[in-house]
Amino acid sequence: MLLSRRDVEFMLYDWLQAETLCNRPRFAEHSRETFTAAIDSAQQIATELFAPHNKLSDQQEPHFDGERVSMIPEVRRALDAFSAAGFMAAGQDYALGGMQLPLLVEKAVTAYFTAANMATSSYAFLTIGNANTLLKCASSAQVEHFVRPMLEGRWFGTMCLSEPQAGSSLSDITTRAEPEPEGAERFRLTGNKMWISAGEHELAENIVHLVLAKIPGPDGKLVPGVKGISLFIVPKFLENGERNDIALAGLNHKMGNRGTTNCLLNFGEGKFRPGGRAGAVGYLVGRQGQGLANMFHMMNEARIGVGLCAAVLGYTGYLHALDYARQRPQGRHPAAKDPASPQLPIIAHTDVRRMLLAQKAYAEGALGLCLYSARLVDDEHTADSAEVRQRAGRLLQFLTPITKSWPSQWCLEANNLAIQVHGGYGYTREYNVEQFYRDNRLNQIHEGTHGIHGLDLLGRKASMNDGALLATMAEEIRATAGAARASRVAQLAGHADALDAAWGRVEEVTAALYAAGDLNKTLANATAYLEAVGHVVLAWIWLQQAMAAVASLPEDDDFRRGKLQACRYFYQWELPKVQPQLDLLASLDTTTLDMQDAWF
Amino acid sequence: MLLSRRDVEFMLYDWLQAETLCNRPRFAEHSRETFTAAIDSAQQIATELFAPHNKLSDQQEPHFDGERVSMIPEVRRALDAFSAAGFMAAGQDYALGGMQLPLLVEKAVTAYFTAANMATSSYAFLTIGNANTLLKCASSAQVEHFVRPMLEGRWFGTMCLSEPQAGSSLSDITTRAEPEPEGAERFRLTGNKMWISAGEHELAENIVHLVLAKIPGPDGKLVPGVKGISLFIVPKFLENGERNDIALAGLNHKMGNRGTTNCLLNFGEGKFRPGGRAGAVGYLVGRQGQGLANMFHMMNEARIGVGLCAAVLGYTGYLHALDYARQRPQGRHPAAKDPASPQLPIIAHTDVRRMLLAQKAYAEGALGLCLYSARLVDDEHTADSAEVRQRAGRLLQFLTPITKSWPSQWCLEANNLAIQVHGGYGYTREYNVEQFYRDNRLNQIHEGTHGIHGLDLLGRKASMNDGALLATMAEEIRATAGAARASRVAQLAGHADALDAAWGRVEEVTAALYAAGDLNKTLANATAYLEAVGHVVLAWIWLQQAMAAVASLPEDDDFRRGKLQACRYFYQWELPKVQPQLDLLASLDTTTLDMQDAWF
Repeated sequence: MLLSRRDVEFMLYDWLQAETLCNRPRFAEHSRETFTAAIDSAQQIATELFAPHNKLSDQQEPHFDGERVSMIPEVRRALDAFSAAGFMAAGQDYALGGMQLPLLVEKAVTAYFTAANMATSSYAFLTIGNANTLLKCASSAQVEHFVRPMLEGRWFGTMCLSEPQAGSSLSDITTRAEPEPEGAERFRLTGNKMWISAGEHELAENIVHLVLAKIPGPDGKLVPGVKGISLFIVPKFLENGERNDIALAGLNHKMGNRGTTNCLLNFGEGKFRPGGRAGAVGYLVGRQGQGLANMFHMMNEARIGVGLCAAVLGYTGYLHALDYARQRPQGRHPAAKDPASPQLPIIAHTDVRRMLLAQKAYAEGALGLCLYSARLVDDEHTADSAEVRQRAGRLLQFLTPITKSWPSQWCLEANNLAIQVHGGYGYTREYNVEQFYRDNRLNQIHEGTHGIHGLDLLGRKASMNDGALLATMAEEIRATAGAARASRVAQLAGHADALDAAWGRVEEVTAALYAAGDLNKTLANATAYLEAVGHVVLAWIWLQQAMAAVASLPEDDDFRRGKLQACRYFYQWELPKVQPQLDLLASLDTTTLDMQDAWF
Repeated sequence: MLLSRRDVEFMLYDWLQAETLCNRPRFAEHSRETFTAAIDSAQQIATELFAPHNKLSDQQEPHFDGERVSMIPEVRRALDAFSAAGFMAAGQDYALGGMQLPLLVEKAVTAYFTAANMATSSYAFLTIGNANTLLKCASSAQVEHFVRPMLEGRWFGTMCLSEPQAGSSLSDITTRAEPEPEGAERFRLTGNKMWISAGEHELAENIVHLVLAKIPGPDGKLVPGVKGISLFIVPKFLENGERNDIALAGLNHKMGNRGTTNCLLNFGEGKFRPGGRAGAVGYLVGRQGQGLANMFHMMNEARIGVGLCAAVLGYTGYLHALDYARQRPQGRHPAAKDPASPQLPIIAHTDVRRMLLAQKAYAEGALGLCLYSARLVDDEHTADSAEVRQRAGRLLQFLTPITKSWPSQWCLEANNLAIQVHGGYGYTREYNVEQFYRDNRLNQIHEGTHGIHGLDLLGRKASMNDGALLATMAEEIRATAGAARASRVAQLAGHADALDAAWGRVEEVTAALYAAGDLNKTLANATAYLEAVGHVVLAWIWLQQAMAAVASLPEDDDFRRGKLQACRYFYQWELPKVQPQLDLLASLDTTTLDMQDAWF
C-alpha cells in the first residue's frame, strides 16, 4: 500500500515519456528495462526494510542522553541497504560511481522510500541534496574528500541554514566564520543552528554539515543582509579523526516525522577543541558572499523533494483508506434502509467515495506535478535544444513554489480525509493514517513556509523577466487545452474550456495586482494567489493525465475510467474553488492589510 | 490564554442578552453577579488545576496493566475541585443540589474547562450528559440512586453506544439484554462496546454506564433496526459492592485527547460474576425499544458540547498564536528591505495577520454559534411564550448539525494555522499548539461523523415538517439582515445584502435537490450542503456579533474594531467560498455517485 505501481508506470511512460530521455547522450545506456530494475529494487527495499519500522521509529523516537543519540537499529539497516543498492548516487555520473538516472526516474525511486518511511528516508535525501549542492559549487578536492564518501553512503550530510532568530529571514543569521591564521582555506565557526534535520546520529562514519555563516569584515562586524553569507563545509570529524567543535544542544520533539533527529547545534562553543582550541573548523565552499546563491542551486530540487514527500504520504494514506473502505461494513443506502439486510462496505456510500476521490485527485495530482517538475529538471539539463532547455527552466522556476506548496497543503488534507474514512479507528495509533497526517504537517513549514512561497510566486516568479515565466506557463496551458479540444473527447473538451477560462482569469488578476502601484498591496494576499494558481496548475496536470489515459488505454480499462473520473472530480469540485479567491485578489482586498495589532 | 474574558462577556451580555433570562421564574434568583461568580470560579479552577497538566496527561497517557488503569494524579485533583465547586450540577434544579444556571452560562463555564484541558474535562462532561439523559427518562428511584451521586461528583458516567461492528449504524448493535428470572427490572447484558470514553478509571467511586442493548424477542432473536434498542444503566459496582461483569478489554491509543481513557468494554464475558454468574447486571431505563430515542434526548446538547470543545480549542490556539506573533521578530516588509533595520514582530506581516484573522473569525464565530445554540436550549425550555419555545426548538433542530460540524472543521483549521504562525516551533511538543491540533481532530469523528451530519441536515432537517425548520431559519436570517440595513452602518448593510443573497441561493438549491426525485441523488453531496449552509449560518452569526458591537461599544474601542474587521474578513474571504459549493449542488452533480469501486 505504498503507491500504485501501475500509476507510477502510467505517469512515467504513458504520460511523461520517460523512454524518450534515453535518446539523450547522458541517458543513452538506459532503457525502460533499467528504469524498471531501479524501481523494482526501490520498491522491494522500501517495502521490506523501510515500511516495517515506520511506526516503531515514531513510537521510539531518537533519544539524546546528553552525550549520544540512540535510535532503533532498523534505521541503519534500512539506510545501509539503500546505499548498498547504489541509490545514494542514483542520479550521479558514472565517473562518481553513480547510475546516471534521469531525475524523473530518481524521483519515482524516491517516492517509494518516502511513502514507506519519511523519517528514515530523510537521512538519505538530505545527504543526496548536500552532495548535489557541493557538486555544483565545491572544488574538485572538496568533492573528492567530502562528496565521494556521501555517495557511497559512508558519510551523511545536512543543511544548516536556520538559526533560532533567523528562520524565514536568513539574512539575519549571525553565525561567524573567522579565517584561521594558518591559511585562507580554513575557518573557525561560532554560532547556533536550529531545526537541523539529521544534525546528529551514529548512522554514518561522519556527518558533513553545509553551514551558512558570515565572514566578518575588516571592522569585525558581520555584513547585514544576504550578501554577507558564505557557505562552509563543517564536518563532524576532521581529517585527522578529531571531533570538530559541534555540540548537540538538544533534539526538538516533533508532532510527526519523529524518526528524523531535528537538532539545535552549537558551533564553536568549545565543547570540543580541535587543534587544541574552541571553534568549529570549516572550509569555504565557492566564493565568499555567494553562500545563499550556492545553497539555492539546490532549492528547486529540494522543493520538489518536499512536494514529493507530501504527495506520497497523501498517496499511501489514500491507499490505506481505500483498503479500509472496501473491508469495513457499515450502514445501508439512504433509499433502502431495511435493517435486516446486510451492511454495505463503506465504499458503497457516496460520501466515502467523495473522500476517496478527493484523496485520489490530490495524491495522484500532486505526484504527477512532482514528476512533471522532475522531468523539467531533466529537460533543463539534458535536452538537445537550447530553446527546450531554457523553456523547461522557465517553467520550473514558475512551478517550483507550487510543486512545494500544493502537495503540502492538499495531501495533508488527503491524510485528513484518510483518517475520516477510517472513523474512530483512523484516530488511533493502532492504525497508520494518523501518523501520515502528523508527519505530513511538517511539509507546509520547512523548505520555505507556505506564505514564503506565496511571496515567491507572486512577488518574484510572476513578474520575473517581464513576465516571461508566466507567459511560458500560459503557452503550455493553452497548448494542453488546445490538444484536449482536438481530441474530440467531450469530457476533455469541456475541461479544456474551463482550464482556459481559469487561466485567463489568472492573467487578468496578475495584471490587476501589479497595477496596484504599491508592493504591500500587490503582495497582501499572495498566499491566496499561490493557492488559486496552484489549483489551476493542478487542473492542467489532471487534464494531461486524462489525455494520456485516453491516448494510451482502451475505453473499458478501469484504470482509465478512474483517471477520467478523478479528472472530472477535479474540474467539478476543485477548480471552481479558485473563483472566489481570484475575485478577492482582483478586488485588491485590504482586509488583512488594514487589520491592526491592537484590534486582535 | 484560554479565552478572552472580555469576548465571553460581550457574547453573553451585549449580544445574547443573558441577563434577560433572569426574568424567567427558573432563573429568578440569578443575576449578572451570580453568572460572573460562576465564570470567575470556572476560570480560576480551569487555569490553576486543568491547564497545568494538559501537556502532561498527553505525554503520560492513562495506562492499563491488564488489571487496573492508572493515570497522573493531577486529573483527579482537578475533577475533585470541579465537583466541589458544584459544577457537576451547574444546570440542575436546586432540589437536586444544582445551581439552576441557564445553559448559556453553563456553556460559558464549560468553555473554560475544555479550553484548559479537553481530556480531563471530558470525564466531567460525560457524567453531566449521562445525568441529563437519566433525568429525562429514568424513574425517580433511578435518579435517586444513580444520578444524585453523579451530581455530587462521587460517581462518573459514560455513554456506551458504539460496538466494533456498529459505529455510525447503531441499528446494528448486537449487545443482548436478557431479563433475569428474579424480576423484570434486572437484566443481564452481554456484548462488546467500543470507543467508550471514560469507560474505565479510578477517578470516582463508581461508573454509571448508559448502555444501548437489545432485548431478544420470544424467538430469542434480536429485533433488527433501531426499534429493538433499549437503554440500560449498567454500573461498574452494584449496590451490594460487587463488581459488575464489565471487563476492560483494552484502551485505544489515540492521536490526541490522550488523557481521556477510550475503551473497548466487554459486558458479560464472565470475568466478574455478580450474584455468582456471568452477565453484566443492568436496569432498563424508560420503555423497552425506546433506547435510541431516550439517548437522543441528549444529543442536541451533546452535539453543542462537541462544537464547543472544537471552538475553544480553536480559541486557545488562536490566543497562543497571537501571543507568539507579537513576540517573535522575523523579517521585514516587502517594500522596505534594509537588512540593517531591526526585524519586525511577525504580526506586522500581512500573511500572518491573515492567519490570525482567520483564526479569530473561526474561533469567535464558532464560540458564538455554540453559545447562541445554548441560548436556544434555554429558550426552548424556559421561555414564557409557547411560540418562542417552539421557534427556538425549530432553530435548534436545524442548527445542531452545524453547531457540531462547523467548529469541528474550521477550528481544526484554526489550529492548523496556529501551528503555521509558530513555524517550526509550532510543530514541536515543546509548544502547545500541536496538541490542540491533535486533540481537535477527534471532533469531526465522534458524536456523529461529519458526513452523518450532512445527511442529518439535508436528509432530515431541511425537509422536516414541510420545511418548517428551514423557513424559521430563513426568517431569522432575513430579520438580522433587515436590522443590519436599518442600522445605516455601511459595512453592516453591505454584509446584509451578501447574507440575503447567499441564503436565497441556499433556498433555491435546497428546492433543486429535493426536485431530483431520487433520494440517492438528492443526498449525494450532502456534505457539501452541510459545509455551504454552515458557512452562511456563520456569516449570520458574525453579522449579529458585529451589530452587537456597534450597538454597545464606542467607535474608538479596539475590541469593536476587531469584531468588525473579523466580520469583514468573514464576508470577504469566507462567505464567497459557498458559491462554488452551491453551484455544484444546484447542478445535481453525480461525480461521486457515479464513481465505481473498481475505478479506484
